Amino acid sequence: MNILCTYNYGREVFSNWEQMGYTVTYVAEDKIDDSVAFETIEILICYNPFKNMPLHRTENLRYIILSSIGFDQVPSDLMNREEITVINNHGGYSVPIGEWIVMMLLIGFKRGLRLMAYAQKHLWKLETDLLEMTGKKIVFLGTGTLAIEAVKRLRGFDAVLIGINTDGRWVDGFECCYPIDQLKTHVKDAAAVVCCLPLTPKTRGLIDKSVFTRMPKGSIFINVSRGSVVNEEDLMAVQTDEHFAFVSLDVFDKEPLAPDHSLWSMPNALQTSHQSWVSERRSLRRLSTIQAALQGIISNRPIPFKIDKRRGY
Amino acid sequence: MNILCTYNYGREVFSNWEQMGYTVTYVAEDKIDDSVAFETIEILICYNPFKNMPLHRTENLRYIILSSIGFDQVPSDLMNREEITVINNHGGYSVPIGEWIVMMLLIGFKRGLRLMAYAQKHLWKLETDLLEMTGKKIVFLGTGTLAIEAVKRLRGFDAVLIGINTDGRWVDGFECCYPIDQLKTHVKDAAAVVCCLPLTPKTRGLIDKSVFTRMPKGSIFINVSRGSVVNEEDLMAVQTDEHFAFVSLDVFDKEPLAPDHSLWSMPNALQTSHQSWVSERRSLRRLSTIQAALQGIISNRPIPFKIDKRRGY
Repeated sequence: MNILCTYNYGREVFSNWEQMGYTVTYVAEDKIDDSVAFETIEILICYNPFKNMPLHRTENLRYIILSSIGFDQVPSDLMNREEITVINNHGGYSVPIGEWIVMMLLIGFKRGLRLMAYAQKHLWKLETDLLEMTGKKIVFLGTGTLAIEAVKRLRGFDAVLIGINTDGRWVDGFECCYPIDQLKTHVKDAAAVVCCLPLTPKTRGLIDKSVFTRMPKGSIFINVSRGSVVNEEDLMAVQTDEHFAFVSLDVFDKEPLAPDHSLWSMPNALQTSHQSWVSERRSLRRLSTIQAALQGIISNRPIPFKIDKRRGY
Repeated sequence: MNILCTYNYGREVFSNWEQMGYTVTYVAEDKIDDSVAFETIEILICYNPFKNMPLHRTENLRYIILSSIGFDQVPSDLMNREEITVINNHGGYSVPIGEWIVMMLLIGFKRGLRLMAYAQKHLWKLETDLLEMTGKKIVFLGTGTLAIEAVKRLRGFDAVLIGINTDGRWVDGFECCYPIDQLKTHVKDAAAVVCCLPLTPKTRGLIDKSVFTRMPKGSIFINVSRGSVVNEEDLMAVQTDEHFAFVSLDVFDKEPLAPDHSLWSMPNALQTSHQSWVSERRSLRRLSTIQAALQGIISNRPIPFKIDKRRGY
């Protein structure tokens, strides 16, 4: 089978795939153009080569193996084609994102932004409103691998860890899980809410004013999943009055966030450039997922991490 | 017995002590002057009222119960008096400091200072050198309650946690402990070194150039105990070349750190104003230590958290 891979995993890896029975073509993602023989490609290993890809020439495409967890970059035209299986990097970034969530919670509770501002001004000033995490109620919207890795790392902090998922099913590591239709009840007394929800038609814009205003004044809001799950205008509006003690946004509705976007100026907030997934182990983990998918395909065995197109993640 | 307390724990607490059999005088620490009847005081509950205290008038003093863990503020004249027992707030700040250590490790590994600087500039810029904590060797200098609370919280991160103490005795939660005379061997491949050592004649200036230069380039150094354990000039010198990827100093040889002190300008560093102990639970925890000491004294039972004057902590 013919693979088009847009990331250079090196000769050794490509040889290994060839020994498995594949033919491998490597073209860097930003070098994708009309000259590629798209007609012959059956497996696409990529992140987002789609903008320069003539979709009508991909009639033999059967598998898209993504290096990302989200797949909003995949044209709906491809997503909707019955014969195409889409595989994501399920869990491949969950460890660094789990660590990231703990860091942002601690920066929020310990007033890290203010402490850093003092350091920049060479100002010695003892702040007395730093909080500890002990006993704090932390609500995770979504109980997938991101939340699970965060919760694993939060166990030693004696916080109260609550999960919100579609049906309220219990997930290991959480104190309690509740269904998403009870969301607004359970954020009422949360010290922090962490958004780990996948982007689906049901979650788009879900976290809006009605959620934010129910969260206590002085609480913390963290988003590590997809910007479009949040109504950014509503967030701006509540945060103008410094409703939250800390807001950490790593994802935005439109990325990159434009230099003049008003979200940059939101008070008590840390905006980062979709960074949370970065780790020195990212290629290693991603590669092992791809390897597992390729082994499944060639031997006609079940493939891990297939996206359920109906469910949307 | 007569107590002089320099912190207002409120009428309810003071009544409770009186019911135990004590006579309580409350004078705020900054209001201590010659008018206080020091001659009658047997128990002093305080942080640092000593600068305005005529020591020759404290002949009946038998117990000093400190709200701090360190006791370098206590005049040696009092420390050396055989009949005076000094009790510190052992472990009273260990939970917030344990959390602080995890926060600073994460800020170091995830390049938090750089990410915050970008946010201030409204700059979208993906950094690819963020590290995860998995598998990293983290060396704790000192295995007392600060390190123990940090290690408890680090267990979920799959890091390699090493302790250094006087004799290398094993302490629960660490992978391994080594004696302090092997310090220089064990920092050689450390991703991070966290200084939790008490200040004693033996530890003063212990962490100097010979330790810093043995730590790998790009590693992390965190100090949460006492500034004078570190040779600050040596630290400045190695960090001029950005030896460390991140330095977090919450304590300094002279506090407050003067506005024009060169340590403020050290690259890749976060200087904070002796903040790590602050938590909304601090009074509650401190009070329970004082209560235990007062119960011990009045009933002539062993008193917890007596400082071993010979050992120095």
